[in-house]
Amino acid sequence: MLAQKYIDMLNKKSVIRELSEYAVARGKEIGYENVFDYTLGNPSVPVPESYNDSLVRLIKEKSAMDLHGYSQSLGIREVRDAVAKSISRRFDMNYTLDHIFMTSGAAGAIAHAVRLVTVPGDEILTFAPYFPEYGPYVNHSGAVLKVVPPSTKDFQINFEAFESMISEKTMAVLVNSPNNPSGIVYSTQTIKKLADILREKSKEYGHIIYLISDEPYREIVFDGVDAPYVAKYYDATITCYSFSKSLSVPGDRIGYVAINPACPDAEKMIVMCGQISRGIGHNCPSAIIQWAVSENLDVTSDISVYEKNMNILYDELTSLGFEVVKPGGTFYIFPKALEDDAVAFCNKGKDYDFIGVPADSFACPGYFRLAYCIETEKVYRSLEALRKFVKEKY
Amino acid sequence: MLAQKYIDMLNKKSVIRELSEYAVARGKEIGYENVFDYTLGNPSVPVPESYNDSLVRLIKEKSAMDLHGYSQSLGIREVRDAVAKSISRRFDMNYTLDHIFMTSGAAGAIAHAVRLVTVPGDEILTFAPYFPEYGPYVNHSGAVLKVVPPSTKDFQINFEAFESMISEKTMAVLVNSPNNPSGIVYSTQTIKKLADILREKSKEYGHIIYLISDEPYREIVFDGVDAPYVAKYYDATITCYSFSKSLSVPGDRIGYVAINPACPDAEKMIVMCGQISRGIGHNCPSAIIQWAVSENLDVTSDISVYEKNMNILYDELTSLGFEVVKPGGTFYIFPKALEDDAVAFCNKGKDYDFIGVPADSFACPGYFRLAYCIETEKVYRSLEALRKFVKEKY
Repeated sequence: MLAQKYIDMLNKKSVIRELSEYAVARGKEIGYENVFDYTLGNPSVPVPESYNDSLVRLIKEKSAMDLHGYSQSLGIREVRDAVAKSISRRFDMNYTLDHIFMTSGAAGAIAHAVRLVTVPGDEILTFAPYFPEYGPYVNHSGAVLKVVPPSTKDFQINFEAFESMISEKTMAVLVNSPNNPSGIVYSTQTIKKLADILREKSKEYGHIIYLISDEPYREIVFDGVDAPYVAKYYDATITCYSFSKSLSVPGDRIGYVAINPACPDAEKMIVMCGQISRGIGHNCPSAIIQWAVSENLDVTSDISVYEKNMNILYDELTSLGFEVVKPGGTFYIFPKALEDDAVAFCNKGKDYDFIGVPADSFACPGYFRLAYCIETEKVYRSLEALRKFVKEKY
Repeated sequence: MLAQKYIDMLNKKSVIRELSEYAVARGKEIGYENVFDYTLGNPSVPVPESYNDSLVRLIKEKSAMDLHGYSQSLGIREVRDAVAKSISRRFDMNYTLDHIFMTSGAAGAIAHAVRLVTVPGDEILTFAPYFPEYGPYVNHSGAVLKVVPPSTKDFQINFEAFESMISEKTMAVLVNSPNNPSGIVYSTQTIKKLADILREKSKEYGHIIYLISDEPYREIVFDGVDAPYVAKYYDATITCYSFSKSLSVPGDRIGYVAINPACPDAEKMIVMCGQISRGIGHNCPSAIIQWAVSENLDVTSDISVYEKNMNILYDELTSLGFEVVKPGGTFYIFPKALEDDAVAFCNKGKDYDFIGVPADSFACPGYFRLAYCIETEKVYRSLEALRKFVKEKY
């Protein structure tokens, strides 16, 4: 019989996807350039030229076996080594290739991390507002995702709520900084405090509580923002990375798991990832893509446009009276809606072709997300629509 | 705590991998050209030039968004459409894009197929000799793999054993033809009989028993061999395909699930695959690889070398007195060892640098597999070692 749980999922449509489809359909009516579509977190700046150059050169120079043959089950050794060296140098860490497992993006990385440190019934805590895909990522493994309510004044961690929810069943805590959807970067103080609590509770419960740090936006941090490398502050950190945002290659499906060398059994955890892959049908990202990223570890797309867009939107939103915490990174901003019901608010925005996403599905009702990975020219043009919307409706 | 089941797996080393590592290490001592390494099913003929040409042209011509942006969650529509048209034309079927889900190779395809039609505790039957990775593929989803003993006279299906093992708990049957490790292709008669039993038992148990057909070797069929397209004979067939062997691109990680249009709820099953992906971290194969295969659906590598190698080995093995069923496809041959213990037999072969894999882990003890995806010149040179081995040890 067909598995009912996936049939049930078909009926729960993603709000982001619905609004995105609405924006595209509306674009067909009035021209997509006239729809201020802030729905999707799809990088808008092109891949660096050096990345495509690498691909073409690899195809011409590598042997068919090296380029198209099976990669080792943990990822290509040279690629893992290059990744380890790059992040060790950048963050003053001691990763070697034995701490790196190549994956199909952050989704693949989290799928492995979750299975590494939980068995069915174990709990993983995450913090609102949170990326709703964490639900299926965690729950389909048999573990249970619990969401700690937000600290809406600054979108750092609500420690009071966290301490009341952490328990013996908590095997891992999943953080995402810079954060989708809030755009906030956790401060060094936040990470230190979190690490202190995790150390204390690990001791109290007699088992390690792992910190799974999902960092696809790590490279997109704005001027002057304190953006600590999470693993530096907690030994048992499993870093999940994706090149999707930094290199604008979400379709290439490439990322990695990096286990802090100071984590007990770090090397064993990496070889365990190779076993987990067998059960979920991964068996490595494409070899050619692995090679290409290994030659582009220290470059990014021109991500400066995101900060520019953020400043334009932040200034306008605050001057219009929105309550909004200034983002420290990503390409999201997360204002409070002008009425309690953010769904109603976003629906009214449609009348002005200003399309944001209400944050109910991010476990933060009353707020909405704008994904400003669009052209700056369009951001400017959207301001008039936003002003009109606010003036006429509120 | 670290998940024990993956730690346990670390201690169970793959026999294939161990022997392959032995062969490589031995090669460092005496020169790899002198080691007759028949261990690994790694395609030995290069990728077709047209495939690399496609990649280079795509990189030059496609927009960054089309090439590196997120692909739709079921796979790129144009690619799914091209796949549907190709297999419909070749096998006289009626697939449309709504019956195709793009995956990361056959491993990814089977991971989805298994989750589609089982819940934990359900049983899937497969037939010995079988590809040992089916164990983790099935068991990690929570379903249970049961292996029907072989029919060693012809390596078709042992129907008597099958009918004694099929039960109400059987939700799917997993077949692999052309078969790894036997090299045998199931005949039309075999597939028809299997389909008849599945229809009868589905009726008896009041639920559909799905047929999961794993077909990575579909293109490698030898002259004159009857190689039926499995889905033609049974409506509820989920075909799992990989381009790894036909195009010699195992490292690219690309394949698909195709649901027979005649299967009840076929289109729904495809959208369910998109939900399954969310839970196992797949989220599509690389977009660029999807585009490249879509332009190379009707070409293959020069796979004629495999038939040539097979004939050389088959003739020699039979003239040396081995009991061996002539392969109809793949790049495997599966003789009976010259003593009951195939492990002991293969160990003795090492003295002659003739390295085959004993079939205990394929659930067919007493036999061994030779993967002859190596250069023909080396196959010829291996015959002398084989003759010497047989003469001196038996």
